[in-house]
Amino acid sequence: MKTAARRGRPGYDLESLLVVAVDLFNERGYDGTSMEDLARRLGVTKAAIYHHVSSRDELLRLATDRALDGLFEVADEVSGASGPALARLERLVRGAVVVLVERLPFVTLLLRARGNTEVERAALARRRQFDRIVTDLVRQAEAEGDIRPDVDPAVTSRLLFGMVNSLVEWYRPRGLSPESLADAVCKVAFDGITTGRAPK
Amino acid sequence: MKTAARRGRPGYDLESLLVVAVDLFNERGYDGTSMEDLARRLGVTKAAIYHHVSSRDELLRLATDRALDGLFEVADEVSGASGPALARLERLVRGAVVVLVERLPFVTLLLRARGNTEVERAALARRRQFDRIVTDLVRQAEAEGDIRPDVDPAVTSRLLFGMVNSLVEWYRPRGLSPESLADAVCKVAFDGITTGRAPK
Repeated sequence: MKTAARRGRPGYDLESLLVVAVDLFNERGYDGTSMEDLARRLGVTKAAIYHHVSSRDELLRLATDRALDGLFEVADEVSGASGPALARLERLVRGAVVVLVERLPFVTLLLRARGNTEVERAALARRRQFDRIVTDLVRQAEAEGDIRPDVDPAVTSRLLFGMVNSLVEWYRPRGLSPESLADAVCKVAFDGITTGRAPK
Repeated sequence: MKTAARRGRPGYDLESLLVVAVDLFNERGYDGTSMEDLARRLGVTKAAIYHHVSSRDELLRLATDRALDGLFEVADEVSGASGPALARLERLVRGAVVVLVERLPFVTLLLRARGNTEVERAALARRRQFDRIVTDLVRQAEAEGDIRPDVDPAVTSRLLFGMVNSLVEWYRPRGLSPESLADAVCKVAFDGITTGRAPK
């Protein structure tokens, strides 16, 4: 039966199914998209989808894990590094920008998760864990005298990643390369948008 | 009949209906919320809702207009002001932060609009108009030598408002006052998170 289904719709393996599902979730909202809608978009029966995944939630879990795994790979890399916290924070920001760009639809879906299902709540818990890593680095860099002490580190880190995460709303592939985008984010976030503090 | 409906459900005038609707839309997504869901949440019949508005879309329009009108009031105030573009940009950012905080659920809904309906597309068109005002100010401030010239003004303005708009995801009333929050945003956005460029 597995073989028959594959022969019937050779175009959809789990990966391409996931990509279409994530696009549809982003377009209409996860809560507003049924398996029926997804089947219609794919031009297959619901049974053909259930051949690959057990539920809509499983698609959501696969998608948000794709985003979160990327972010945690960067965080793990950074936490194993030595050197000033500010330099590690910059590596984290650069790495996160690259993950956002390379896994754009997945991160978009992650950032829109509201916690309405068990899977969404699990994703939000992992997001909070990542946020804590950022805040800890900001705190450490502040203690080392490299981050401004006149703003609460929790607020600083939220503003910093607010800027980073905004990419999913406006960045379009074929625009800036991930590296140029990471450069722009780091310049603006670390040194500000003004020339005011630069030597004159 | 109007009077009877009002007598029957004295608690829901248009304003309180709108507030509950916006909370529900933010919770479940606009596309995932039916008038049936809203009626259930309110504990009234659908007819009682249609007494106030003609459609779900009208609620969305009222809500997004509440957010957009606030932002455009600030933009109009700023565009009538004189002085360096950077100072006007700062006033715009401060004003926008206050609007975001004071109209948090409305702006949240606005920022999540995807353009799936006519009303959403109209809201997105007004958002783009606001974004152009920001980009024009950034461009002008760059020409005046006050904004860093090494990042595209369109990217700078998106990062700046990416930071501002992120407030809807993490700011909670009873936290920082709108003014302290605006201070933090301006410090971080205009001068950066680091102490690196400050005189030592």
